[in-house]
Amino acid sequence: MAQRIGNYTIKLDKQPSVLGYAAVVGKKEGQGPLGRNFDMVYEDTLIGQKSWEKAESVLQREAVKKALEKAGCQPSDMDGIIAGDLLNQCISSTFGLEPFDIPFLGVYGACSTMAESLLVGSMMIDSGAANKCVCVTSSHFASSERQFRFPLEYGGQRPPTAQWTVTGSGSVILGSSGSDICITEMSVGKIVDAGIKDANNMGAAMAKSAAVTLLNYFSDTGYDPKQFDMIATGDLGFVGSQILIELLSREGINLGDKYTDCGLLIFDRDKQGVDSGGSGCGCSASVLCAYILNGLKEGKLKDVLFIATGALMSPTSVQQGESIPGVAHLIRFNKISN
Amino acid sequence: MAQRIGNYTIKLDKQPSVLGYAAVVGKKEGQGPLGRNFDMVYEDTLIGQKSWEKAESVLQREAVKKALEKAGCQPSDMDGIIAGDLLNQCISSTFGLEPFDIPFLGVYGACSTMAESLLVGSMMIDSGAANKCVCVTSSHFASSERQFRFPLEYGGQRPPTAQWTVTGSGSVILGSSGSDICITEMSVGKIVDAGIKDANNMGAAMAKSAAVTLLNYFSDTGYDPKQFDMIATGDLGFVGSQILIELLSREGINLGDKYTDCGLLIFDRDKQGVDSGGSGCGCSASVLCAYILNGLKEGKLKDVLFIATGALMSPTSVQQGESIPGVAHLIRFNKISN
Repeated sequence: MAQRIGNYTIKLDKQPSVLGYAAVVGKKEGQGPLGRNFDMVYEDTLIGQKSWEKAESVLQREAVKKALEKAGCQPSDMDGIIAGDLLNQCISSTFGLEPFDIPFLGVYGACSTMAESLLVGSMMIDSGAANKCVCVTSSHFASSERQFRFPLEYGGQRPPTAQWTVTGSGSVILGSSGSDICITEMSVGKIVDAGIKDANNMGAAMAKSAAVTLLNYFSDTGYDPKQFDMIATGDLGFVGSQILIELLSREGINLGDKYTDCGLLIFDRDKQGVDSGGSGCGCSASVLCAYILNGLKEGKLKDVLFIATGALMSPTSVQQGESIPGVAHLIRFNKISN
Repeated sequence: MAQRIGNYTIKLDKQPSVLGYAAVVGKKEGQGPLGRNFDMVYEDTLIGQKSWEKAESVLQREAVKKALEKAGCQPSDMDGIIAGDLLNQCISSTFGLEPFDIPFLGVYGACSTMAESLLVGSMMIDSGAANKCVCVTSSHFASSERQFRFPLEYGGQRPPTAQWTVTGSGSVILGSSGSDICITEMSVGKIVDAGIKDANNMGAAMAKSAAVTLLNYFSDTGYDPKQFDMIATGDLGFVGSQILIELLSREGINLGDKYTDCGLLIFDRDKQGVDSGGSGCGCSASVLCAYILNGLKEGKLKDVLFIATGALMSPTSVQQGESIPGVAHLIRFNKISN
């Protein structure tokens, strides 16, 4: 059973276990600082498919396959798969995951999807609705750019606040027991509108939602940011991270040197020309499944807050003059000593 | 706690209660056979907004407001809101629900969204992650047509297999106790690809997924369709319903005269020119919240299976030659006698 702490935080007594995880990425991500950590790097942007959308489906399918392998599980062992992505109607999940024949719950949280799928998966495990389940998401630079901004062939210029959509996927297998890496607490984020209307400044649009989720979490629990080994936001990038630090410091909270952002970890901003950093559902998902969970497995990390952030907009809403609200969900991972 | 029965069915010991519900619809739906049952009928397709997308957001917001009122609850009493819709990146949920300031989980299940949101909401209640939550979805004929098919101004012809996207929204408030209408069992559907490629024949694309979910449920539980007062699919329409009946009869299951489809209930096919019937997330949601739940409240119905069906496609996937997979989630509602 779960217990509610304060207004926003959910404490999981059953502590869902991370049984396996995997991350697969594209060439540019493979050339970045975390290159060696990924389970697979695809040199071909199309991964042998006829379209970028189909390539993104392959990323999701391969991430799940590898995570299942590493967990020593078969698709038929899974009671549910919780997935979503950035493409219209979440088609990379549909077409990527159909062959597994696992009961499917589609989620949409923009780039917060990895945390949302872990949240729903943890509730499934916690309630007993599932004994084992898969959480997965993906993004692809080329399928995202042409859907959200311009066709790549157009060669549009990027402002320095722009972020680079990660080509990648991360997948986690959760179970009711069987691993010393557990999800112990989580917090469902609210839709927070900071009034940002610039679709080339997603970090700024999402920073306030991350601040609200973290403030609510620290207020509910009374914890100090210092007690965590890592506090990692999803894809605020350089611009958004600075705003988050500033917003929290105004509220008397110093995130300290344990704070980082998956969008800053995955690329070398000085050398890789990604402007403000990485973004996309696949950004936080692949960094979680290649770097953060490895750190927990190896014992370098024991207590981590993972806060994936999403910008809840569409080209239609931007064209109709709406601002870009954000959402951020929090997951606490612990290495449990036996 | 939930118990798993067989491979696909989840039995909820805690039996989440339906504390309130409401349905709001457009003019055409108000003129249909269920017209008197809706909480509000909007004569103006734009509902005073500048775009159909914004009008759809209003539908969702008003359905939640009315459901909260009828439940005697405030938005601040809610620990979560689970919502999604058909628009790209689910923007009618984002912009419709932001003002409530409730922790938000976005789901995407195409027209199966009402069942999916009830499924996730029930797990939240069952696990103790929420004491009360809101489930909601919507669709709008005009926003859907221009996104999925043609601009309305183009005046494209409709084949007889086409369905009419419902302009409407339905919302349910769930709680851990407090009502004699309860969710007692549920079943998460799989992605089922029947190989249909015609975006004007959604009923055929979704029928097999409904058949698979119902077969799994009857196989898991050993129940007979006869024991239910109503078995209602989401929006298979006339064509899809006939296929479902045929597919199940081949497996030796006779759905009998208790079977119906929300897409057939909401419109008068002879008089309203809707071809195969109603469709859209708002179809099953508004029929559930205006007709089925009223039947349970009044005691006319005591044991109902609600199987919302979704077609997991996008214009991009159809243009790229992909088929249209379906998904169907099952929710069992019971009137509990004290």
